[in-house]
Amino acid sequence: MNTTELIRKKRNNEALTKEEILYLVNNFTKNKIPDYQFSAFLMSVYFNGMNKEETSALTEAMLYSGKVLNLDSIPGVKIDKHSTGGVGDKTSLILAPIVACAGVKVPMISGRGLGHSGGTLDKLESIPGFRTDLSITEYKKVLKKVGAVLIGQTKEVAPADKLIYALRDVTATVESIPLITGSIMSKKLAEGIDGLVLDVKTGNGAFMQKEKDAVALADSLIQTAKIFNKKVIGFVTDMNQPLGNYIGNWLEVYESIQVLRDAKKNDLTELSLILSGAMIYLGKKANSLEEGIETAIKILSSGKAFDKFVKIVEEQNGKTDFVLHPEKYPKAKYKEVIKSKASGYLSEVNTYELGMVGIDLGAGRKTKDDKIDPKAGIIFNYKIGDTINKGAVLAEIFSDSKTGIENAKKRISLAINISTSKPKKVKLIKKVFT
Amino acid sequence: MNTTELIRKKRNNEALTKEEILYLVNNFTKNKIPDYQFSAFLMSVYFNGMNKEETSALTEAMLYSGKVLNLDSIPGVKIDKHSTGGVGDKTSLILAPIVACAGVKVPMISGRGLGHSGGTLDKLESIPGFRTDLSITEYKKVLKKVGAVLIGQTKEVAPADKLIYALRDVTATVESIPLITGSIMSKKLAEGIDGLVLDVKTGNGAFMQKEKDAVALADSLIQTAKIFNKKVIGFVTDMNQPLGNYIGNWLEVYESIQVLRDAKKNDLTELSLILSGAMIYLGKKANSLEEGIETAIKILSSGKAFDKFVKIVEEQNGKTDFVLHPEKYPKAKYKEVIKSKASGYLSEVNTYELGMVGIDLGAGRKTKDDKIDPKAGIIFNYKIGDTINKGAVLAEIFSDSKTGIENAKKRISLAINISTSKPKKVKLIKKVFT
Repeated sequence: MNTTELIRKKRNNEALTKEEILYLVNNFTKNKIPDYQFSAFLMSVYFNGMNKEETSALTEAMLYSGKVLNLDSIPGVKIDKHSTGGVGDKTSLILAPIVACAGVKVPMISGRGLGHSGGTLDKLESIPGFRTDLSITEYKKVLKKVGAVLIGQTKEVAPADKLIYALRDVTATVESIPLITGSIMSKKLAEGIDGLVLDVKTGNGAFMQKEKDAVALADSLIQTAKIFNKKVIGFVTDMNQPLGNYIGNWLEVYESIQVLRDAKKNDLTELSLILSGAMIYLGKKANSLEEGIETAIKILSSGKAFDKFVKIVEEQNGKTDFVLHPEKYPKAKYKEVIKSKASGYLSEVNTYELGMVGIDLGAGRKTKDDKIDPKAGIIFNYKIGDTINKGAVLAEIFSDSKTGIENAKKRISLAINISTSKPKKVKLIKKVFT
Repeated sequence: MNTTELIRKKRNNEALTKEEILYLVNNFTKNKIPDYQFSAFLMSVYFNGMNKEETSALTEAMLYSGKVLNLDSIPGVKIDKHSTGGVGDKTSLILAPIVACAGVKVPMISGRGLGHSGGTLDKLESIPGFRTDLSITEYKKVLKKVGAVLIGQTKEVAPADKLIYALRDVTATVESIPLITGSIMSKKLAEGIDGLVLDVKTGNGAFMQKEKDAVALADSLIQTAKIFNKKVIGFVTDMNQPLGNYIGNWLEVYESIQVLRDAKKNDLTELSLILSGAMIYLGKKANSLEEGIETAIKILSSGKAFDKFVKIVEEQNGKTDFVLHPEKYPKAKYKEVIKSKASGYLSEVNTYELGMVGIDLGAGRKTKDDKIDPKAGIIFNYKIGDTINKGAVLAEIFSDSKTGIENAKKRISLAINISTSKPKKVKLIKKVFT
């Protein structure tokens, strides 16, 4: 096959065959197709897209570039969840223990913070000692024993994705539905799961800002999962405001504890229960999505899910003392409150900006080698539609950097809008694909 | 500036500023922007195009990547011609001496065969001793003395074009009007010319097969020339059959001699006179295109143009003996005639295929390092619309390769169509832009 001719074919909007896609991905991964040809190919895919057969061939090529885990030795149905990421999205920490309590196995391979969005691994690592770098043997052992395990991507899993992502990142080819699909699905399928629940975010704090794009991505992910014979339920959910109230790594663990132990109720709780319900249903421990959600509610209120969370932390070497007594956790040097200068309704939140402010406070990385400060972050007290009185505490911010705090104060004030007329309530679940 | 953001901008179909384009081209040329980013940029340009300001900035960046010749020391107006190439297109050999006779200076920097299309340099080098690698000093000397000079691109001229073209060639980004415009115009503007006549070919033997694309390219080239304050006339001309009857390097020199010395009249003669007329007009030796053409006709019939051609060959070290006595030129080992199996009208010629057959006979290169056989080629006796009788000699083919001859015979028979009804005559000049 001739690489230039394959680029030309995609450029001319003709569908590539499975063999042609395998040729391109395999040879790029083996360093036999140079970066400059593959980036031209990626840009052609950006413009002309891929049909579902092409997307599935891309996923397959990326999947088999590395190891595919076999979890057959562990009894039970294995179901994972994937979220496309946003601000304050900590549902994994809540749903993994709930679903494990229902008797469904939850083998989660998660990521780190990316851009304005946080990452499950960074959050978990704010618990001192918590290991996200378990070996495959340890991973299987924890999954079998506790029913849930949360680790980072190992080098053996989908190495093609790492290479392709690095090239996409510097060639403006990240925002492509088939390329995103290949990247997500190759990693998820490598986990050895039986089914997957997808949470595709949309709104001003999501990667897919427009609902139309989020729906298209959800559709592509679901089609691909089905081609690989995986059970799948997809949700398109709102990210026009942070999920829950806490943003920042330890702060998000702390809010998860509040949901799991203290029955805190907000949009985070609601979404966690719905996603848990979907996983329980796919894991055959309920006969419908609704029944799955009911099961999840019961487990959460029983307190068993919190115990399971403590168990997961313990098995992954984390210090449970902080989980049991979060008040003991070290405090940031500086704390500041932001008060409302007006009365009215919270009508708009620049969620992306809140994520970026969080990073500036120390909760994320600006460059690959930056250290994260687990204590840093924002507590954002209101939801869109809430009444706010003049002088009310809109947000609390935490950082070891004095200038970080000062900048954050200004930026957060600019990132929200208070209106005099009551805005429409935000719909959390925009769409469900079963 | 951030290269990824500039790629994204073009990808999102926003116009780049002049500074942004200079940044991209200059840093790529200096090896500071990697190939994989530049190829993604090129693919974005392929899809989203460039407006005339962007195209002119691209041309400027490529032009000033190298030396720009200064011909001020040579009296007279300097006018060149550029053709986008085709099969049998040897007008340069005919118009350079005609225009020089009219008192206009013709500084021509030409190219070699590319794909199915022949190159002026290869044709000239079929004259033993003919040097196309003159130094800049020699180039100016010949131009001053004879009034016309024909050489190849020197390393000092538009080095960015060589680098960009090499990348376009392997990333399926050749067929882009702004990129073609930058490539052509940067080289032509570097010649130090005052004006340019453009011959954009269209048809089944041209790079721009569709007339719409050829018109768009002509328009882009003309706009760019005007931005650089060059006088310009553009033609879109037919390439649905070979120009003239001879294809192959020495064969094309020989046909040029027939036009210059022996008053041979065909489409080649007609086009050469029109292009000459346009150059004479731009060179201020005529008051209109029509007057320019009349001047060209007079010069050609006077025999002075042939003398000038001999003079050019002599000054560029070529053996004039063969030009004066072409019958002395060495003959190919094998010659074969192809006769018509039917009576009717010549209705269709696969011109691209004739070009490719010529290459197979030895008239062009399949790989960069192939040697050209100057004696190889095809004499194709008919024009579309001509009456052909059964048994008439359609073509004569020449090669040192016996198998080449056998294959060529079959392929040429398949490359033409003889119809029983008289086809519409082909219009040689499709469009004129003044």
